[in-house]
Amino acid sequence: MKHRETKQKKVRKENLSDWYHWILEEADIVDSRYSIKGMLVYKKWGLLIIREMQRYLESLLEESGHEPTLFPVLIPEDILGKETQHIAGFEEQVFWVTHAGENKLERKLALRPTSETSIYEMFRLWIRSHTDLPLKVHQSCAVYRYETKHTRPLIRGREFLWNEGHAAHADKEDAKKNILEIQDIYGKLIRELLCMPFLIDRRPDWDRFPGADDTYAFDTIMPDGKTLQIATVHDLGQNFSTVFDITYEDSEGKHQHIYQTSYGPSFGRLLAALISIHGDDRGLVLPPKIAPLQVIIIPIIFKESDTAEIMEYAKKIRKKLDSMDVRTEIDAGEERPGAKFYYWEMKGVPLRLEVGPKDLKEKKITVVRRDTGDKSTIAFDEVDDVCKIFEDMSKDLGEKAEKGFNGKMFEAPALEDVGKYAGKGVIKIGWCGRKACAEEIGGYVSILNVDGDPLECVVCGDKGQGVRAAKTY
Amino acid sequence: MKHRETKQKKVRKENLSDWYHWILEEADIVDSRYSIKGMLVYKKWGLLIIREMQRYLESLLEESGHEPTLFPVLIPEDILGKETQHIAGFEEQVFWVTHAGENKLERKLALRPTSETSIYEMFRLWIRSHTDLPLKVHQSCAVYRYETKHTRPLIRGREFLWNEGHAAHADKEDAKKNILEIQDIYGKLIRELLCMPFLIDRRPDWDRFPGADDTYAFDTIMPDGKTLQIATVHDLGQNFSTVFDITYEDSEGKHQHIYQTSYGPSFGRLLAALISIHGDDRGLVLPPKIAPLQVIIIPIIFKESDTAEIMEYAKKIRKKLDSMDVRTEIDAGEERPGAKFYYWEMKGVPLRLEVGPKDLKEKKITVVRRDTGDKSTIAFDEVDDVCKIFEDMSKDLGEKAEKGFNGKMFEAPALEDVGKYAGKGVIKIGWCGRKACAEEIGGYVSILNVDGDPLECVVCGDKGQGVRAAKTY
Repeated sequence: MKHRETKQKKVRKENLSDWYHWILEEADIVDSRYSIKGMLVYKKWGLLIIREMQRYLESLLEESGHEPTLFPVLIPEDILGKETQHIAGFEEQVFWVTHAGENKLERKLALRPTSETSIYEMFRLWIRSHTDLPLKVHQSCAVYRYETKHTRPLIRGREFLWNEGHAAHADKEDAKKNILEIQDIYGKLIRELLCMPFLIDRRPDWDRFPGADDTYAFDTIMPDGKTLQIATVHDLGQNFSTVFDITYEDSEGKHQHIYQTSYGPSFGRLLAALISIHGDDRGLVLPPKIAPLQVIIIPIIFKESDTAEIMEYAKKIRKKLDSMDVRTEIDAGEERPGAKFYYWEMKGVPLRLEVGPKDLKEKKITVVRRDTGDKSTIAFDEVDDVCKIFEDMSKDLGEKAEKGFNGKMFEAPALEDVGKYAGKGVIKIGWCGRKACAEEIGGYVSILNVDGDPLECVVCGDKGQGVRAAKTY
Repeated sequence: MKHRETKQKKVRKENLSDWYHWILEEADIVDSRYSIKGMLVYKKWGLLIIREMQRYLESLLEESGHEPTLFPVLIPEDILGKETQHIAGFEEQVFWVTHAGENKLERKLALRPTSETSIYEMFRLWIRSHTDLPLKVHQSCAVYRYETKHTRPLIRGREFLWNEGHAAHADKEDAKKNILEIQDIYGKLIRELLCMPFLIDRRPDWDRFPGADDTYAFDTIMPDGKTLQIATVHDLGQNFSTVFDITYEDSEGKHQHIYQTSYGPSFGRLLAALISIHGDDRGLVLPPKIAPLQVIIIPIIFKESDTAEIMEYAKKIRKKLDSMDVRTEIDAGEERPGAKFYYWEMKGVPLRLEVGPKDLKEKKITVVRRDTGDKSTIAFDEVDDVCKIFEDMSKDLGEKAEKGFNGKMFEAPALEDVGKYAGKGVIKIGWCGRKACAEEIGGYVSILNVDGDPLECVVCGDKGQGVRAAKTY
């Protein structure tokens, strides 16, 4: 392995944005220099992290009865436009294919901004009877939205990678049940795989997915205090099934419109949050479960004559780790150990194993944790301890992130307090539910959710609820 | 598991095309009813097979030094158009994005028909020195071509799934070396994973990839005698590096244009060939390594009172197979065993294990091979034998396919013989190398390759080579 020379490190606390752009390039996450604004080139390390996320999520979804599918990227204009609120919400953002070669197409074709409409056209053909329900499908794909706001790599782009799930239900209750199950699955993905805390926020009506009766968003708090929406779950009611005429025959032979739910996490935004929340000045800090490489073994060789023996020892350790399904590599490159340490720390590899002449002699291994820098020694026969260390790291990383998260929760008894905390985290605010008052609050922050304990509105003083609000990405 | 009622089976030999469309629908491979011609909805079984192919291939490519990447689906017109032969070859097939929302875009954007141009724009930024070479990347993605010919599911479509690899080399020799290495990797994919025979054909100049100096194509022969191109490998020389100005500094400090190779197999076509070559009247026959499900266990229950014990036995078998990483399921549904046999045979699952009261009593398992229908009995303690049976099956399937393939090889000493064998397989024909003679031959078949032993031209009688020709998909 040969490592590139690195650019000047950035200090994360001083300027999160500078640090973020530095590490995206340095760690081979993405390249932002592609010739179309808002479209990224995904590079090896970023893609391998996304691959792990995708496999973990797909496996949970498939266990819960979702069938993998892949629908075309193009949706004819008439189909995209069937549900009026849906198209109203997306029409300004749609990329349109109008020509093929020299020919003007008879119908314009949209690059999917999301796939409800293309999938529901097929649901109409696939669903006949109550025995076909629930029908659940998912797909991992890219979607396209012509963002006019300032784009940011992985956070706001014109092409982004996600997984979208779509389910058809016989009744409202089954739809509700699925919403809870999906919240649980996404919760596992975010908390267990990525060790990140989150909030589930039922969005105000003006912030719902176009065509949904309700939208539940997963928000996390970035180190700079702004929130990032990383996943959403939508209760679509019968809005789409009515216009797409998707019906089933119930057990009494009557035709009923199905109920629907749709949902998706953004792999790009999850990756952006993962990088920002766990990272430090030395670079990425990856929780063990998501790390593409979990252990890097670095042979420490002082005397040329030790090389063969130390390399053999390193290979024995690797073999043992391989058999435990721990993703491991040996860095046998020619750089000095210091340069290797620096490189793999920047890449966020959870554990570094150093094996030098002393380790070899004593049949020991020096183990260094990426998150804390803690150095310890384990016996060769106790390589299994690596798994225990991974568990500790996951727990510690989760707790550290949780602590940062909890430190960014504020309460604003009056409107002037909202201004004080705006941009520092999530603020609990009393709100009466009226749009006019929300707009007043909106001068500082956006309202994230609509449910809370009774609390007087900070604007009009009327009875209301304590809701969450924040500056958002 | 509940199985749908099935439509009338089709006889494969009588009409391959009818059978093919029947099994695509029946086995949940793809749905061809999407509202845009030539664009498919990939369904569970098809997608799971493609997922296995993709993982196998990606793993070989990454072992050989390819970095995974993902480039944007859109390519600006000026970049797609840089290499004149390349754009000339693709311009009639390009889907153009011209608008976003209501706005006309300043530059037209192409849906990638292939990614040479977008990738090489970045190669120019990534490559500086000879130490950066070779640089090899790959991506699994969909590409878009507005086919005007008759479309056929998985064989000729307007959106198709593939993996494309791109490499940058310091010199011609390294490029040649890579071409051989990729031929070896694709050979493994086709022969070892999919148990299919193939030919590697160096294409005549009029049939090269637009912008390539040479194209090596992998052709297989479908049961109807037509050949199907399933993968290609291109020697791009310096054609792209010259116009994209991709240079490196050699060890003497001089700037040199890189040499390039690009290559890709079509997952859709590989799947089409897999289905057609191995299938039989009962449906799919999947080689063990590619089968999403390798073993289906079917409990045979005559007396209600035996249920618990037989199910427990089935679960014990499954557990053992799970621990061996054999993809296994138990079909505990309410259908009669016959219906289950029928269903899983149609799906092509390589092995069926039947466990009934007699098997339980004798601690045995009845094993039925999908390809031959052979029934045998193994002891519970010899479940490992399943792997041996898989090996035999893979070998037998490969040999059977090879036999079919060899039976479709003909020689045509004269032009009238060409007509006789046209559409029945691959024909060895003497050809002088002149375009005019190729056009004469082209009335019957297409010339697949340009290399062969000395043989007189069937058209003009001049000196030539024995080349391969066939009717092609």
